[in-house]
Amino acid sequence: MKKIMNKAENFVDETMEGIILAYADRVKLLNNDRRILLTNSSVRKGKVGIVTAGGSGHLPMFLGYVGQGMLDGCAVGNVFASPSSKKMADMIRACDYGSGVLCLYGNYGGDNMNFDMACEMVEFEGIETRTIRVRDDVASSSRNTLDKRRGVAGMVYAFKIAGAAAEQMMSLDEVSKLTEKALKSTRSVGVALSPCIVPEVGKPTFSIGEDEIEIGMGIHGEPGIEVSKMMTADEIARILLEKIFNDMPVQGEEEVSVMINGLGATPMEELLIVYRKIHMILAEKNIKVYMPHIGEYATSMEMAGLSLTVLKLDADLKSLLRSPASTPFYTNYNK
Amino acid sequence: MKKIMNKAENFVDETMEGIILAYADRVKLLNNDRRILLTNSSVRKGKVGIVTAGGSGHLPMFLGYVGQGMLDGCAVGNVFASPSSKKMADMIRACDYGSGVLCLYGNYGGDNMNFDMACEMVEFEGIETRTIRVRDDVASSSRNTLDKRRGVAGMVYAFKIAGAAAEQMMSLDEVSKLTEKALKSTRSVGVALSPCIVPEVGKPTFSIGEDEIEIGMGIHGEPGIEVSKMMTADEIARILLEKIFNDMPVQGEEEVSVMINGLGATPMEELLIVYRKIHMILAEKNIKVYMPHIGEYATSMEMAGLSLTVLKLDADLKSLLRSPASTPFYTNYNK
Repeated sequence: MKKIMNKAENFVDETMEGIILAYADRVKLLNNDRRILLTNSSVRKGKVGIVTAGGSGHLPMFLGYVGQGMLDGCAVGNVFASPSSKKMADMIRACDYGSGVLCLYGNYGGDNMNFDMACEMVEFEGIETRTIRVRDDVASSSRNTLDKRRGVAGMVYAFKIAGAAAEQMMSLDEVSKLTEKALKSTRSVGVALSPCIVPEVGKPTFSIGEDEIEIGMGIHGEPGIEVSKMMTADEIARILLEKIFNDMPVQGEEEVSVMINGLGATPMEELLIVYRKIHMILAEKNIKVYMPHIGEYATSMEMAGLSLTVLKLDADLKSLLRSPASTPFYTNYNK
Repeated sequence: MKKIMNKAENFVDETMEGIILAYADRVKLLNNDRRILLTNSSVRKGKVGIVTAGGSGHLPMFLGYVGQGMLDGCAVGNVFASPSSKKMADMIRACDYGSGVLCLYGNYGGDNMNFDMACEMVEFEGIETRTIRVRDDVASSSRNTLDKRRGVAGMVYAFKIAGAAAEQMMSLDEVSKLTEKALKSTRSVGVALSPCIVPEVGKPTFSIGEDEIEIGMGIHGEPGIEVSKMMTADEIARILLEKIFNDMPVQGEEEVSVMINGLGATPMEELLIVYRKIHMILAEKNIKVYMPHIGEYATSMEMAGLSLTVLKLDADLKSLLRSPASTPFYTNYNK
């Protein structure tokens, strides 16, 4: 196993130490806890707090989005494991600036359970919370069981929209409403080419045939919806977009943001080749792309593959998407 | 072979099409030539042009740095192959705004030969040029044969410094002098864990043992200086930093920028774990880190591994490093 690390059991703590040493201008730990990251920018009293939590192993997701204009706090667990409800509650308390806290996360079992408990604890103390579970992955469950769908790269758009709305001093209700609106218009689907290695396990967590790819595989290796022979970039682009359009039609004249997210080991060249085809198909349908996001946003360490996310935009969402943000891994300085 | 592409012979052209479709606000092609990328920002008359060229397969290097505050133009060849002298000359002509053009590139045989020819062509037409070959890779040749050293990730710092100086309307002499100063203070060294696949070749270009790593391997798979058994992140950090310090001593109280550059398939978590140790060793020596760069800056497609670059800073270089830039893959909005 070739992972550049020290002891496997220190993988997450040492990653967090790296973040803190590199980006102390933008982020800080809560009480030296190497599992709870907070924004280091001066937050205005009365701003709604935006927090998330989840397993490690997905950088830049989630830790990389803590900072001005996006997340106020993020609690992480071990690789692919939820943090405890206690850590979540500590984080929520630290991110309550007097107007409540929005908990925005990926609809995974452990995170759901722990966030529910954390919210109960802090509400008992008088902190108002709202919960929004991101469910953008169309491959993770059918349209009849939407509540079982998982959150994947579309969470980045949710963080951006929620963070921007909070930055404008909107109320917890307003921030939640805009975030729900964005998520109603967000769909993702991925394709995996190779597995990843969980440090403490030390070997690939699953296997994919030498000439095969798995469409719809989850970011922890959850089974996809079909195993196919390796195909061209144009075919992959067409299939992924079709799966999204089947779930969420987009009309000509509409505007979308598109994210081509590398899962870890896929070269930027290949992401751009896929973007090229997506852009061309959208152009044929007279759909315009606004602020494409191409790169690594939500990974599974060294997994090869990519995901496509489409976010339908209106004037409100466009304005929130382009507003300034400054976090270790997401910077936006549009006016 | 699992590469997300269409025909191998279209890999570079389709990558470039992806860039143009995604980032038309910042970059454009010269006369529809899918091998010559130019900045799309309005350039002031009299600004020195900054250009580079090289083989494809290293994104974000080189194309990703074309834009405001960095490169004015970039010509690319096939994967790992130099573009022609004719394309370079076309690019130089397009990037001459009346005060000459700095050609800043990586000291590879084909690029050297073709840039020399291109400069001869355009100088005959009255365009003044300067050439600076980046030679930051300490592993690529000994101190006695400095002129044989290759340029690797340190080129990104050179593009940033040169671009910022040109943006301040300095003369070709001044821009060149500051860039030379930065490069005198820049050293890199890398470590490779796995090979990459050149699309038209279709299989790994070299092999590294299952439990081995190669220190000093070049970004095209050029042989390194030693093959070692896999080691811990802390050991890798210590060895790479030692190789740089042996070549370029850094004193306590000095300030440096540090780049931890992923070669393509290495997870961000692992880059941060290495940064952590580098930061700690530097802190022990009382050396401060300014604007660390951690991520993928110069890759070899799906190669696993990383490189370390250290840039010693003074007040001039700090100011140029932090000045604004806006390119598809490098954004800086510090004042």
